[in-house]
Amino acid sequence: MFLTRSEYDRGVNTFSPEGRLFQVEYAIEAIKLGSTAIGISTSEGVVLAVEKRITSSLMVPSTVEKIVEVDKHIGCATSGLMADARTLIERARVECQNHWFVYNERMSIESCAQAVSTLAIQFGDSSDGDGGAAAMSRPFGVAILFAGVEDGKPQLWHMDPSGTYVRHSAKAIGSGCEGAQQNLKDKYTPEISLSDAIDLALDTLKQVMEEKLNSTSVEVMTMTPQKEFYMFTKEEVEEHINKLA
Amino acid sequence: MFLTRSEYDRGVNTFSPEGRLFQVEYAIEAIKLGSTAIGISTSEGVVLAVEKRITSSLMVPSTVEKIVEVDKHIGCATSGLMADARTLIERARVECQNHWFVYNERMSIESCAQAVSTLAIQFGDSSDGDGGAAAMSRPFGVAILFAGVEDGKPQLWHMDPSGTYVRHSAKAIGSGCEGAQQNLKDKYTPEISLSDAIDLALDTLKQVMEEKLNSTSVEVMTMTPQKEFYMFTKEEVEEHINKLA
Amino acid sequence: MFLTRSEYDRGVNTFSPEGRLFQVEYAIEAIKLGSTAIGISTSEGVVLAVEKRITSSLMVPSTVEKIVEVDKHIGCATSGLMADARTLIERARVECQNHWFVYNERMSIESCAQAVSTLAIQFGDSSDGDGGAAAMSRPFGVAILFAGVEDGKPQLWHMDPSGTYVRHSAKAIGSGCEGAQQNLKDKYTPEISLSDAIDLALDTLKQVMEEKLNSTSVEVMTMTPQKEFYMFTKEEVEEHINKLA
Amino acid sequence: MFLTRSEYDRGVNTFSPEGRLFQVEYAIEAIKLGSTAIGISTSEGVVLAVEKRITSSLMVPSTVEKIVEVDKHIGCATSGLMADARTLIERARVECQNHWFVYNERMSIESCAQAVSTLAIQFGDSSDGDGGAAAMSRPFGVAILFAGVEDGKPQLWHMDPSGTYVRHSAKAIGSGCEGAQQNLKDKYTPEISLSDAIDLALDTLKQVMEEKLNSTSVEVMTMTPQKEFYMFTKEEVEEHINKLA
Amino acid sequence: MFLTRSEYDRGVNTFSPEGRLFQVEYAIEAIKLGSTAIGISTSEGVVLAVEKRITSSLMVPSTVEKIVEVDKHIGCATSGLMADARTLIERARVECQNHWFVYNERMSIESCAQAVSTLAIQFGDSSDGDGGAAAMSRPFGVAILFAGVEDGKPQLWHMDPSGTYVRHSAKAIGSGCEGAQQNLKDKYTPEISLSDAIDLALDTLKQVMEEKLNSTSVEVMTMTPQKEFYMFTKEEVEEHINKLA
Amino acid sequence: MFLTRSEYDRGVNTFSPEGRLFQVEYAIEAIKLGSTAIGISTSEGVVLAVEKRITSSLMVPSTVEKIVEVDKHIGCATSGLMADARTLIERARVECQNHWFVYNERMSIESCAQAVSTLAIQFGDSSDGDGGAAAMSRPFGVAILFAGVEDGKPQLWHMDPSGTYVRHSAKAIGSGCEGAQQNLKDKYTPEISLSDAIDLALDTLKQVMEEKLNSTSVEVMTMTPQKEFYMFTKEEVEEHINKLA
Amino acid sequence: MFLTRSEYDRGVNTFSPEGRLFQVEYAIEAIKLGSTAIGISTSEGVVLAVEKRITSSLMVPSTVEKIVEVDKHIGCATSGLMADARTLIERARVECQNHWFVYNERMSIESCAQAVSTLAIQFGDSSDGDGGAAAMSRPFGVAILFAGVEDGKPQLWHMDPSGTYVRHSAKAIGSGCEGAQQNLKDKYTPEISLSDAIDLALDTLKQVMEEKLNSTSVEVMTMTPQKEFYMFTKEEVEEHINKLA
Repeated sequence: MFLTRSEYDRGVNTFSPEGRLFQVEYAIEAIKLGSTAIGISTSEGVVLAVEKRITSSLMVPSTVEKIVEVDKHIGCATSGLMADARTLIERARVECQNHWFVYNERMSIESCAQAVSTLAIQFGDSSDGDGGAAAMSRPFGVAILFAGVEDGKPQLWHMDPSGTYVRHSAKAIGSGCEGAQQNLKDKYTPEISLSDAIDLALDTLKQVMEEKLNSTSVEVMTMTPQKEFYMFTKEEVEEHINKLA
Repeated sequence: MFLTRSEYDRGVNTFSPEGRLFQVEYAIEAIKLGSTAIGISTSEGVVLAVEKRITSSLMVPSTVEKIVEVDKHIGCATSGLMADARTLIERARVECQNHWFVYNERMSIESCAQAVSTLAIQFGDSSDGDGGAAAMSRPFGVAILFAGVEDGKPQLWHMDPSGTYVRHSAKAIGSGCEGAQQNLKDKYTPEISLSDAIDLALDTLKQVMEEKLNSTSVEVMTMTPQKEFYMFTKEEVEEHINKLA
Repeated sequence: MFLTRSEYDRGVNTFSPEGRLFQVEYAIEAIKLGSTAIGISTSEGVVLAVEKRITSSLMVPSTVEKIVEVDKHIGCATSGLMADARTLIERARVECQNHWFVYNERMSIESCAQAVSTLAIQFGDSSDGDGGAAAMSRPFGVAILFAGVEDGKPQLWHMDPSGTYVRHSAKAIGSGCEGAQQNLKDKYTPEISLSDAIDLALDTLKQVMEEKLNSTSVEVMTMTPQKEFYMFTKEEVEEHINKLA
Repeated sequence: MFLTRSEYDRGVNTFSPEGRLFQVEYAIEAIKLGSTAIGISTSEGVVLAVEKRITSSLMVPSTVEKIVEVDKHIGCATSGLMADARTLIERARVECQNHWFVYNERMSIESCAQAVSTLAIQFGDSSDGDGGAAAMSRPFGVAILFAGVEDGKPQLWHMDPSGTYVRHSAKAIGSGCEGAQQNLKDKYTPEISLSDAIDLALDTLKQVMEEKLNSTSVEVMTMTPQKEFYMFTKEEVEEHINKLA
Repeated sequence: MFLTRSEYDRGVNTFSPEGRLFQVEYAIEAIKLGSTAIGISTSEGVVLAVEKRITSSLMVPSTVEKIVEVDKHIGCATSGLMADARTLIERARVECQNHWFVYNERMSIESCAQAVSTLAIQFGDSSDGDGGAAAMSRPFGVAILFAGVEDGKPQLWHMDPSGTYVRHSAKAIGSGCEGAQQNLKDKYTPEISLSDAIDLALDTLKQVMEEKLNSTSVEVMTMTPQKEFYMFTKEEVEEHINKLA
Repeated sequence: MFLTRSEYDRGVNTFSPEGRLFQVEYAIEAIKLGSTAIGISTSEGVVLAVEKRITSSLMVPSTVEKIVEVDKHIGCATSGLMADARTLIERARVECQNHWFVYNERMSIESCAQAVSTLAIQFGDSSDGDGGAAAMSRPFGVAILFAGVEDGKPQLWHMDPSGTYVRHSAKAIGSGCEGAQQNLKDKYTPEISLSDAIDLALDTLKQVMEEKLNSTSVEVMTMTPQKEFYMFTKEEVEEHINKLA
Repeated sequence: MFLTRSEYDRGVNTFSPEGRLFQVEYAIEAIKLGSTAIGISTSEGVVLAVEKRITSSLMVPSTVEKIVEVDKHIGCATSGLMADARTLIERARVECQNHWFVYNERMSIESCAQAVSTLAIQFGDSSDGDGGAAAMSRPFGVAILFAGVEDGKPQLWHMDPSGTYVRHSAKAIGSGCEGAQQNLKDKYTPEISLSDAIDLALDTLKQVMEEKLNSTSVEVMTMTPQKEFYMFTKEEVEEHINKLA
């Protein structure tokens, strides 16, 4: 009596008879086409390590930005559609600045994730409740890892296209996320040091990346109470990669 | 002479020949994909107990919020699409605050449920009668349990995607709702003490949850005239779970 | 040469070759899925008696409102989609208040029915002629019985999704309307007393309700020149039910 | 090479290859589902006689209004969708009042018909040229007979869903219009007295009505230079019906 | 490889692979369903003669207006959808008045035709470039003959649904246009007198009309430098018809 | 795996899998249904010669304008949908006037072509970036030849529905463009005199026109530094045609 | 269970089950129909060399502009739909001017690419977040090479329809991009002199162009700290071409 799945999966806001919204599920698939990103939270700080897809030796790798600073105390790694990622990151930055101006304090990482999530779930609405930036006519095809420091404590949050945001100890997104997540689950301990976490992140990336892992094909950032957002230099990345071998 | 059901079930505001709106019925199905939530009302207070789906050991369970405070005297448990739930809860909070400012009194639980319902049934309209927040282009895929205290008396209300809100003595929503509701019907008595109600709620959850019931996979809240919104600590939850065994 | 019915029945404003608007007809079907409501007009007053569907023993029956007060001199019973009913009742209340403020007199029952009808027939229009509340993108799936007192005389009016409103001596709406209407036709006389009318209404409901008729599953209201809108207590309902047996 | 009719008949503004707009033609069919109305113009005045469909003995016939006053000197009988009729009559009333206020003279019957026609032909337009009441997304499914007095002379006008308005000596609309129109053609003479015209109208109705013709199932109105809009009482209608037998 | 015609002919602004806009062509067909109108330009003046379709002996023929005055020096005959014709004529009148007010001179016939054409070709646009009257969602299904006097010289112009307007010596539109146009081509000479032109127009109509040609079924107007817009009386029309026999 | 062409060719802004926009290509076909126009640029001036389709001997050929003046120094010949052509020409005139008022200098021919092109490529957008005239919902089905004089030098530009505008020495558009373009390529030399260019243009038209070439069926215009926009009289055209024979 | 690709590839914002947006991928195909453009970055400056498709000997090649100046320090070569390219280039110019006025400094090449990208990824949105120029209803079918000088250092950036912009040492776009890119990869060294880069660019074009490479069919521009945007004359282009032979 029911139609097959394919009759319900193109309308962005059409429920299937089982109550599913397929376009949101397909948006989650879009992330699996993206580059792999890994976040690990330790008591010393959070590390984000991201694969960079350098498809040609004539590209300038440093201009492929996969990890961006949202505020001094929040950095993000994204995977999926880059254009969508830019829109969400822009929102995150504006919200953080706004919070600072209005309350004279840093926005919490959860609030920041929530603000981005609020934008992410407005797809299909003709107007934006906030009267601000325009909403999308489809779900955003991007997942985000938020690495932040709040009250001196590092935090790692993850948000997906359905607008769900949850804090994690360690999380992998992107094409290699399944293998990577398993590896993190096997090797992560709450007592892990930041340095070991960097090695674990790079080692995990190494296992799931199709390309060779080197200082060009990966970006590493640490978010610590001391240094806050800190992007690793090529040399620092290489040092850690050499340790793996 | 009539078409089969499948010809009428994608238009959000299309009546079938029998006068049914299938998209609303499918939205109700969406709730059956959500985690189970149970509410029990006693003369001492209302208890809400909700399953938390912790899909990975690397998630931080405390950040998966299934029970939220709307006002000091109203708490909600939701099941279904989390993004939709957030929009409705936000409306509930705004309405409660507004009521407080305008009338200098607490909003009744029924009025709060009605305000949320009014938003829930505006799907498919291009503009919002209130001129305020934007309406949805589909029904909200979420059910809500409202636990509140009014004039010193506890109340439990339930709202579903069709916008119907009714007061209950005990109510289960989410994937395990059928078995849970039967269990509540069999064991609930109007004279039940709050402590026994907590045990009944947890015991019912235990029967319908796929995952093991423990202090991580469940959230418990009581709404009492004395303490109002009170979230149980991990230890308090464990204590009650141990009693069940 | 013509297509079958099924090709014209989804567009809300598409005429079939015979000049019919099927979506309006289907909306009328929606009412046949609703609970039965009965109204009887006598020279002493009007009685409304409505079936309440208590689907679970854990529901609090008193919170299932099927009869509502619009103004002191107008009460309504509705059948069909409850969300739609609420929107129309809200409009009725606003119109009555408005009339009172502007003209310093009570709105006539016919004017009130007309005002609701005007909203009901605007489906499919993108904007509302009055510039006020937003119009619907489909017909309202609800029928309404208006019981009122005007110049000391009781009146009963009925409105359906096509916006037609007509005064009746006695009228039944909802799932049992066909059997009920026949019973009313057979037994109603213009000389009936209000007390007999209450008994006739309850007896008629008894015949068409699937559930047992008792003080929980039925709501009774009388609209009289003396007491105006008067909701029966559980005890008063029981008294009349006992008389039937 | 052409498609069959059925491919062009749902778009409200889609021409068929032969240059026809089928939705307008279907709207004209809608009128054939309505009750029959007859208008006859004499030198003494115009008579309108309309069938009232009393589907239940519990309806209050006097509240089924088929003939309405637009202005003191213009009355209308409508057939087809009652909700559409109300919208057009409302426009007619507003235009007449407006004309009175602006020019301090009565609106001519032709101007009134034209004003209604202007609204009737705006279907399918997103906005109204006059910036006033909102336009329809389909043709209006209603025909109107305008009976009026202008410069002391009676006039009868007819308007259909295509917006065409033409003056007639005698005209029948609604389900029985074909038989009725033939009867009028056979028996009407320009010299007919108003009293004979009333008899002719009732006799014609009698032939085409399925229900029995009596003072409940018919409404009669005369528009004369002396009395202007005059609705017949039940007794006056009965008197004329008795004459027919 | 191409689809058949029928796939491109419903979208009002969809090009077929050969670059045709079928809905415009179908609108031209709509004119062939209309009554025949003939215009002949002579050095003394222009004559317009139009068939009136009197479908019933009870219609008042004088109220079926097929020739209308736009300004003192411009008259129009239309064929096709009457509602569309009225919209275009209204625009013509407004433009003429406007021109008079702004420039204190009569609008040229060509400018008037251009102004109407500008409206006619805006179909399918959501807003009107002039910010004035609302545009159509389909082409106008009407052809217009403009008869005017400019600088003491008579002119005849023709406009069709594609918005093309061209001056003619003699032109026929409507259902009989093909036969009529051939007759005009055979018999028209630039030296024809106005009186002969009237006879030619009526004789041509006589050949193509299904109904009998008489003073009721035809309208005749002359536009001359002396009398400008002049509508023939029934007697004057009869006189010319008698001459034909 | 791909669909056939016919699945992508109706959406005005739908890319086919090969990256083509078929509606633009079909609009280019629309031009091939139009009359042929030829432009030739010489050092003395530009000549435009256009076929006029006189479909009836009763048309007044001089009112079929195929060559229009945009500004004193710019003239245009168009081919394709005349209604579209008028819209684009109107834009060209406004832009030229605007440029004059703002900068007190003549607009360059390239700038004029660019301004028209900017309008031509806005199809499918709901609003116009300039906030001015309304944009189209399909590509314009017209090609334009711009003949102008800039700094005393003649220029010929061509624009097609894709918005591409390029300067040419000689260019043919319309139904006969392929044969005509070949002829121009064979016979054009940069040293050609204006008089020879006129002969070449007319000779080329003669070869591709279905109708006989004479002073009625063709329009000739020269744009020279001395006389600027100059339309040939019937006699001047005849003179050149006689030379050809 | 899934539909084939062809069911998801026409909705501009419809995800396929694998999470792909096909219309964006098809827009990238549109570029492969465009002319080939090559950019090479050296320490002395950047060279852009672009194929010009001169389809007729009567076109004036110098008016086919494939390389345009955005600001004194930024030049662009585009490939794909020329109309789309113009819109994006216009945005780039406005952004550069704006930056200059607001900050009194030159816009960085990356910022300029980002601004263009922001416009490019707004397709499918009904309104523009900036409230400025109108957004597209489909992806832009164009790729852009940005050649610029920043702080005295040359830079080459590339942007595609998905809005991705990355810096390159050397990059080819358009129909011949695959072969060209391979050639660049084989022969490019970071130490290449600007003069050698010009030769490499021309040699690469020569290999992939269908037409003969000569000073008419190619455009060359260098962006150097000294001369900034410098377009090569016909003679300079010829000189380099002669060197290749």
